[in-house]
Amino acid sequence: MYLGDEAWPDLESYFESESIALVPLGSTEQHGPHLPEATDHLIAEAFARAAADRTGYLCTPTINIGVSGHHRQFHGTMWVDPPEFRQYVESMTRNLTSHGIDRVIYVNAHGGNVPHLREVGARLRQAEVAYAIEWMWDESIPELVDDLFEQNGPHGGPKETSMIQYLESDLVHDDRLREAKEGGVPSVDAAGTVRHGSRTFYDAADNTDNGVLGDQTDATAEKGRQLFEAASDQLVYLCEWLADQPFEALLPKEHV
Amino acid sequence: MYLGDEAWPDLESYFESESIALVPLGSTEQHGPHLPEATDHLIAEAFARAAADRTGYLCTPTINIGVSGHHRQFHGTMWVDPPEFRQYVESMTRNLTSHGIDRVIYVNAHGGNVPHLREVGARLRQAEVAYAIEWMWDESIPELVDDLFEQNGPHGGPKETSMIQYLESDLVHDDRLREAKEGGVPSVDAAGTVRHGSRTFYDAADNTDNGVLGDQTDATAEKGRQLFEAASDQLVYLCEWLADQPFEALLPKEHV
Amino acid sequence: MYLGDEAWPDLESYFESESIALVPLGSTEQHGPHLPEATDHLIAEAFARAAADRTGYLCTPTINIGVSGHHRQFHGTMWVDPPEFRQYVESMTRNLTSHGIDRVIYVNAHGGNVPHLREVGARLRQAEVAYAIEWMWDESIPELVDDLFEQNGPHGGPKETSMIQYLESDLVHDDRLREAKEGGVPSVDAAGTVRHGSRTFYDAADNTDNGVLGDQTDATAEKGRQLFEAASDQLVYLCEWLADQPFEALLPKEHV
Amino acid sequence: MYLGDEAWPDLESYFESESIALVPLGSTEQHGPHLPEATDHLIAEAFARAAADRTGYLCTPTINIGVSGHHRQFHGTMWVDPPEFRQYVESMTRNLTSHGIDRVIYVNAHGGNVPHLREVGARLRQAEVAYAIEWMWDESIPELVDDLFEQNGPHGGPKETSMIQYLESDLVHDDRLREAKEGGVPSVDAAGTVRHGSRTFYDAADNTDNGVLGDQTDATAEKGRQLFEAASDQLVYLCEWLADQPFEALLPKEHV
Amino acid sequence: MYLGDEAWPDLESYFESESIALVPLGSTEQHGPHLPEATDHLIAEAFARAAADRTGYLCTPTINIGVSGHHRQFHGTMWVDPPEFRQYVESMTRNLTSHGIDRVIYVNAHGGNVPHLREVGARLRQAEVAYAIEWMWDESIPELVDDLFEQNGPHGGPKETSMIQYLESDLVHDDRLREAKEGGVPSVDAAGTVRHGSRTFYDAADNTDNGVLGDQTDATAEKGRQLFEAASDQLVYLCEWLADQPFEALLPKEHV
Amino acid sequence: MYLGDEAWPDLESYFESESIALVPLGSTEQHGPHLPEATDHLIAEAFARAAADRTGYLCTPTINIGVSGHHRQFHGTMWVDPPEFRQYVESMTRNLTSHGIDRVIYVNAHGGNVPHLREVGARLRQAEVAYAIEWMWDESIPELVDDLFEQNGPHGGPKETSMIQYLESDLVHDDRLREAKEGGVPSVDAAGTVRHGSRTFYDAADNTDNGVLGDQTDATAEKGRQLFEAASDQLVYLCEWLADQPFEALLPKEHV
Repeated sequence: MYLGDEAWPDLESYFESESIALVPLGSTEQHGPHLPEATDHLIAEAFARAAADRTGYLCTPTINIGVSGHHRQFHGTMWVDPPEFRQYVESMTRNLTSHGIDRVIYVNAHGGNVPHLREVGARLRQAEVAYAIEWMWDESIPELVDDLFEQNGPHGGPKETSMIQYLESDLVHDDRLREAKEGGVPSVDAAGTVRHGSRTFYDAADNTDNGVLGDQTDATAEKGRQLFEAASDQLVYLCEWLADQPFEALLPKEHV
Repeated sequence: MYLGDEAWPDLESYFESESIALVPLGSTEQHGPHLPEATDHLIAEAFARAAADRTGYLCTPTINIGVSGHHRQFHGTMWVDPPEFRQYVESMTRNLTSHGIDRVIYVNAHGGNVPHLREVGARLRQAEVAYAIEWMWDESIPELVDDLFEQNGPHGGPKETSMIQYLESDLVHDDRLREAKEGGVPSVDAAGTVRHGSRTFYDAADNTDNGVLGDQTDATAEKGRQLFEAASDQLVYLCEWLADQPFEALLPKEHV
Repeated sequence: MYLGDEAWPDLESYFESESIALVPLGSTEQHGPHLPEATDHLIAEAFARAAADRTGYLCTPTINIGVSGHHRQFHGTMWVDPPEFRQYVESMTRNLTSHGIDRVIYVNAHGGNVPHLREVGARLRQAEVAYAIEWMWDESIPELVDDLFEQNGPHGGPKETSMIQYLESDLVHDDRLREAKEGGVPSVDAAGTVRHGSRTFYDAADNTDNGVLGDQTDATAEKGRQLFEAASDQLVYLCEWLADQPFEALLPKEHV
Repeated sequence: MYLGDEAWPDLESYFESESIALVPLGSTEQHGPHLPEATDHLIAEAFARAAADRTGYLCTPTINIGVSGHHRQFHGTMWVDPPEFRQYVESMTRNLTSHGIDRVIYVNAHGGNVPHLREVGARLRQAEVAYAIEWMWDESIPELVDDLFEQNGPHGGPKETSMIQYLESDLVHDDRLREAKEGGVPSVDAAGTVRHGSRTFYDAADNTDNGVLGDQTDATAEKGRQLFEAASDQLVYLCEWLADQPFEALLPKEHV
Repeated sequence: MYLGDEAWPDLESYFESESIALVPLGSTEQHGPHLPEATDHLIAEAFARAAADRTGYLCTPTINIGVSGHHRQFHGTMWVDPPEFRQYVESMTRNLTSHGIDRVIYVNAHGGNVPHLREVGARLRQAEVAYAIEWMWDESIPELVDDLFEQNGPHGGPKETSMIQYLESDLVHDDRLREAKEGGVPSVDAAGTVRHGSRTFYDAADNTDNGVLGDQTDATAEKGRQLFEAASDQLVYLCEWLADQPFEALLPKEHV
Repeated sequence: MYLGDEAWPDLESYFESESIALVPLGSTEQHGPHLPEATDHLIAEAFARAAADRTGYLCTPTINIGVSGHHRQFHGTMWVDPPEFRQYVESMTRNLTSHGIDRVIYVNAHGGNVPHLREVGARLRQAEVAYAIEWMWDESIPELVDDLFEQNGPHGGPKETSMIQYLESDLVHDDRLREAKEGGVPSVDAAGTVRHGSRTFYDAADNTDNGVLGDQTDATAEKGRQLFEAASDQLVYLCEWLADQPFEALLPKEHV
């Protein structure tokens, strides 16, 4: 069920019987010469909608702009700074509980959002307001990702390329995949900016000239389909696990 | 030009020659028994995209969740509190200037966002970071709105109903228009909650049982088309006016 | 009863039997060549004191400095920025409840304070700390204002001029009323800064060279007296209405 | 010169030639059974106005509500919490500099405001925005205070009683001076709440049943007059010293 | 008992039977040419550890960096600004209560921390989270301090010099005591920066060229020993007094 | 060079010639039945002091209390919440630059601090205030850690146990190593709380009954020595690399 499409009286029975919401969160940021800036929020929305369709759980509209300051050197990257992102997400989540939601899956497709969603989730749980957890599609199927790609990226690599080839093929510049690969770096390791145990970089531009990593020529829409289906399964399982828990079991453990 | 669809190298020439961005902002909130919760962000996005298409200026992805706490009593309303909304919008706008944008039109379709967008805009202008102004479609064509409807609402009334009938007809419950009218109130005045000059209400629920005002039976998709075209013209003119100004002319006046 | 004049033991019986306070809030800002910078806080205080005298309800000392950044270009305008104003007013109001006050009328005489007082009031009500509402004298008697003046201003116009002529005649430069009119603009509309539905101005100085609007030559102390008495009546009625409500009736409505 | 009384054009020459402002700050809080809650802001305003009259420097309207949470147990005490007070004063002071003010004397009559005014002043000076210092009348004439009273208070004692007897005699309950003395304590020391070097009290109510300290029967209006005149002299001298300094001399010293 | 040395299971019985913690707080800041920058946190830690050893109460690790911006002109001074200090200490203290601590002694050795610790303590007490009070060694033995030294400083004077000579003699440059005295000032009074009742200084550098006050040549390790023992006694007594109080007796008094 | 031990004049030459500081940061939190709560700050301090000794660079006093809310269920864990930690560290670092420091290594020994130190570092770099990076000893020698231990933990495992056995052997309960192992879990994976790609845990207590992971019986002081020496080498190399960079090379890259 997609919240945005519904009139309020039609949501009443959902809130009476269910307490889960899936909230898609992405980013609007450079994804190399071949992928659209919308990449992350398109992916997040696709997963959240698919899982909502399959399970009947509620999907909300998408938060399209996240924590992407580390891509600031590339045209078009939009972002909010971390404190503002956390506060926006926390306020939105707290308010969602006024309708009876007490568990939220942040269906996230942007690595830069992760620590902030974790911080918000920890705070909400500790306050016993809601149990909100972060899910990222590629983390749910690490073996398949490894099987399909030699150099998966992460950012703007074949993993994300395949996904957009599958979901929104018109938005991929297939004729730039080689350029994407050659203008970027194979991996963070290859960039040589982790020095003596310290990440001495802060921005994507410290590591890669064109903003991407990995071997984009390894991407296909068919791989995207496999990834999407496999990860959607995982998200569905997560929804089911979450729905099965009594709320008390989701709260912080007692002091020893 | 829609920022979300573009790869970063394809935005370079835009930022070299132009400095305007249209940012759609709406809300996700109850709009009565007949309209979807997405109403406001659908409208905002439609106007911003249309004006961007007609002028070639840049449209960004949409901020879907705004300041809607005054609709909290109705199922499904999502919101962030005012400080968090202002900070999110301000941070986003400041960061957008890193690419050369120095003037922004907040293409807004939710009255509850207005004072907050004005506050952010005033702060950004005073700091000489950007000149950002708020635009709401119905404010741009007050006479046409008055001509078309006896009781225009505002919230969830025939004005917004016509607009969604035109833009997303599948999302309107046409069979509930009479119910919408009969369960609501004709206007804020009719609710009688402005007492001795003081607005003694804070929430929509203080004024209306079903969340809406006005005569929804007066709405048609054809009226929606007229409204959309007329207001789109105004937005295009505003873009053109704005693009013509030297940045200095947009900054605060000197102290007398 | 004026709180500032009382010793604490003499307030005990008031707090035992009543729970209303009137808090005057104004601004210290330019009001054109003819009116004093204190205009708004003088007016607010006069109304709050008068209504307290007539009803026996408690009036507190005045908050003299408000949100007036939009008058910054004119000598002597004092202001605090919106977040600081809201926080100051909210903290003051929350603390006032420690004595048993649970309903507050912000007797306000400055338009620039309005959205901020509304925001604070909404927050306090939602938190069930207090029911605080904003009242502005001219909003309570719109017909009389329209009857008395062709071009009422708003800022520094004949409406406010008459009021100070009545309340503090020594502080009005009657010999500058023509200059005030000729150096200003008749109305915001006349300034032409609402473009295609967007308020493209932020500061008074964007609209008027001398800081004022309307026809000041239309002002008289006698009109001021009429306005003061009529609006005072409204404030008294508002106090009485408010005192009659059970606190529960003032709280937010339940979720549908 | 009192800013509140002036129209903006009449302030121009002041700001062209001078850069000092006196800002009165007080509190609205219990001052025992005999003194009005306005005591501190009345005193602050009286000193600031007097010094402005004698020197020609600018006095602004008064901030009437300060940091008085430690008097919360007594009817009618109003306060804002420390962070909100500091932010309000800092914002007001920063904005005042837009007219050319670069040095401010906080004419303060409430001990509870002191550390907060010092903190704000330090921040403004360090930022080279303004040089703002706190002045309290009794600190400027310690010997005279000691000469006139055996047990001066501080809070609501004979020092403040004499001052209000002189400034606003109608607001003093002279018939309660003995009651004030007998219901309070002679001094903080006498309350016995400084234990082993630690102030174990936070509120006035921890030390005194009726909210006051000292021997109020020792107060007279004539003593008030002497105090007022002597301290006014000191404030005038401070203004003169401050006006004589080049701004650079008021800024923080260089790093060694 | 020192918390840092213990494994968690070994703390269980303490928290079952006791609810006091001693938290040492100091600063890292210049203390003249003869004393180490660690002076204040070394002293704070020494007192807290000693009192914990003598009483069996719990001592936590030390907060080494405090509010020392007023020493910024001297090499090596470290500090956090007041809001950040208060928030850090408040958060730490609130969280400490999760183990059952409800009373805290801030064993402080830096005057610049005092108002901030008082502010945090007042807030925590008002919220009924914890009763936390500030203790500074020299405030507990004013007579002995006066007996031992003619000009005790305060900052970097013979009082602190003696203490470090006793506690960490290797860190005192005994050969620079005369230089310390001659390069500094005897007292704040002697600096002449309290003008007409106003402290016109903000930084130590406004008063003293080498950062210190008092007569350092009057310091000896033996005096340090006397001071340490006498003040340790006071801290022990304070612990005992505090442990004897029922928690209710430590909370704010009721409204009159 | 250890800042805490120095008198300010003795730091002058350092700041004239160098601009690096090492700031140790740890935590005070449960580390199982066998290790002291001080574990992380002891380790951080030991590395920072050792590297400072070997290179001559400046080491500051330690921040002993970090972000450890996820250990709250175990007696004695102390923490500040993430916003307060970030603000404290940011303020401290900004202020340190007043002496000429422009590059900082956060010598960190607590995983929970990492994202917060990264966030602060990114902000400071973007503002061009300082280049501050986080370093954690075990990240610098991943191969040696893998070689030495089968199940390294992370928290309270053999890696940290060996380190404390080497650095502070008296503080390790060697007789509880088997108990530590048997009461905990081998790894996060083994806890089974990463479900379908989502970390469904927030607290250590969600994963482990006694607070620790890994095989503590595999720890020895000799392994601790090897780890300490190898990682110290890495920290020294990092210092040298950092000192060799021109400041401009450390700043954010230009926009493409």
